Amino acid sequence: MKCRVCRGAAVIDVPRHNANFCEAHFLDHCREQVRRAISHWKMLDPGDRVLVAVSGGKDSLALWDILLDLGYDVEGLYLGLGIGEYSDESGVYARDFAAARGLKLREVDLRDDYGFDVPGAAKATRRVPCSACGLSKRHLFDSAALDDGFDAVATGHNLDDEAAVLFGNVLHWDADYLGRQQPVLPARPGFPKKVKPLVRLAERETAAWCVLRRIDYQVEECPMAAGNSHLGYKEALNVIERESPGTKAHFYFAFLDRIAPRFDQTEAKDALRECTSCGAPTTGDVCAFCKLVERATRPGARDVPVRIEIR
Amino acid sequence: MKCRVCRGAAVIDVPRHNANFCEAHFLDHCREQVRRAISHWKMLDPGDRVLVAVSGGKDSLALWDILLDLGYDVEGLYLGLGIGEYSDESGVYARDFAAARGLKLREVDLRDDYGFDVPGAAKATRRVPCSACGLSKRHLFDSAALDDGFDAVATGHNLDDEAAVLFGNVLHWDADYLGRQQPVLPARPGFPKKVKPLVRLAERETAAWCVLRRIDYQVEECPMAAGNSHLGYKEALNVIERESPGTKAHFYFAFLDRIAPRFDQTEAKDALRECTSCGAPTTGDVCAFCKLVERATRPGARDVPVRIEIR
Repeated sequence: MKCRVCRGAAVIDVPRHNANFCEAHFLDHCREQVRRAISHWKMLDPGDRVLVAVSGGKDSLALWDILLDLGYDVEGLYLGLGIGEYSDESGVYARDFAAARGLKLREVDLRDDYGFDVPGAAKATRRVPCSACGLSKRHLFDSAALDDGFDAVATGHNLDDEAAVLFGNVLHWDADYLGRQQPVLPARPGFPKKVKPLVRLAERETAAWCVLRRIDYQVEECPMAAGNSHLGYKEALNVIERESPGTKAHFYFAFLDRIAPRFDQTEAKDALRECTSCGAPTTGDVCAFCKLVERATRPGARDVPVRIEIR
Repeated sequence: MKCRVCRGAAVIDVPRHNANFCEAHFLDHCREQVRRAISHWKMLDPGDRVLVAVSGGKDSLALWDILLDLGYDVEGLYLGLGIGEYSDESGVYARDFAAARGLKLREVDLRDDYGFDVPGAAKATRRVPCSACGLSKRHLFDSAALDDGFDAVATGHNLDDEAAVLFGNVLHWDADYLGRQQPVLPARPGFPKKVKPLVRLAERETAAWCVLRRIDYQVEECPMAAGNSHLGYKEALNVIERESPGTKAHFYFAFLDRIAPRFDQTEAKDALRECTSCGAPTTGDVCAFCKLVERATRPGARDVPVRIEIR
């Protein structure tokens, strides 16, 4: 197995590119894919101040590392979700990464700062934990970026993530979600710009980036996500990808290029006003995050302790 | 396990309907699903003369049986594809079904009538066998129906088939195919009406119909189709369906109801004229089927024998 670039010994194959790479040229390949994504979808301008949503997993740490490599002014924000040992360990990986490189890691802790955690919110709302988790992340990353004047929030969604989300949206034919599934969402009043610079890298590649760059990361999947539909969609696409490498990338990129415009949201959006509690944009009086906080911290909301098991 | 209808002992479960049925009520369920498909998509009028494309497999024999049950005037057409033992056996099942019921089965044999077979055509055209096979079937069923004044050609495509085809079209985002994937295609000059009355039945249900009605059918999959993408798409959807029964039906029916109009082919179609050789509609001088016949029967086209192995 020889490196496509230098013909030296390869350390990894990337079947969808029909290529093998040595260590140095694999790292080049990853940087190049991120550079291309940023340029093609006009995600960032040179020197932009970027807030990276850091979970302590391979994708967010690789993203932070690569964006620094490419010369952006990046800070990380870690969100303590209160998901037992999983969150404790994730926080350690995020902090160690930042400390070893002298980088600034901001932290928000759901329990300390807002009085609830994801398992408790799931119980209080009687919905899947991923719902309260996603809502909290969107709200807190957005408001942190706006409060401190960042040019964009960057998240570590990779090609596998985006293809699986697209597959889920297609299985349900949700035209609204299909219209919004873009690797860059421009800033609009009350919302910062949001970008996904890793969409041209598969998750095997972000993992390999971390291994080769000696970045320790949380390997466990979130125990609350085990068995959710998203992971099922990923696995189904993986079965097809193994048979026909490149199918996943074509599915996602052809959608963005040719099909997404058919789902463009031309209908007038509901007018947004400011949440009376926190000032975030909302269609009602109080935003969904403030409602969640109220519900999850109501007396009795967490009467039954939630047990989390790490596999 | 009790029958949803009569609370008697059930013989089969239909997870996407969250229902179990006894033998009699399962057969009712199948008839009802076919009746609903025919009515909802305006496939047939009472008493229509229908030509069923018969392969000798579970779907086409169940279709023939159910359409007779529902009172249509049905004849079968069996196409000899020349795929080794598989075709020999398929023909026997088709003939036995017709003979036991005193039904008329028409037959066309690619080798006897046109001088080639599917394995030979695949070799001559250097394409996958499913390509020459599909082209031959479409051409010969269409022309038989037109020549004899049938109101429609009915094919045994079931819910699993249609969902898998839709999945493939979505993975490739083929807007033309997406625009044409309908359970009924109206007649137009040179083409008969084409209908798929089994789209509301899963293949497990058409198989159960045959078992309960004592219909012997070809159980083997076509050996030339083994490993093709269509079967891979089916398997991927099955994995998801097992986790969330009903996903497949929702994927297909929501597409037809809400999404297909976005892929409607409003662009002007290429003007069609008559094939100078057989009279079928074509955009060129000679239709694709006549070109296939010419190519597959050219001297030397079949020099290397094709070996077919039945698993």
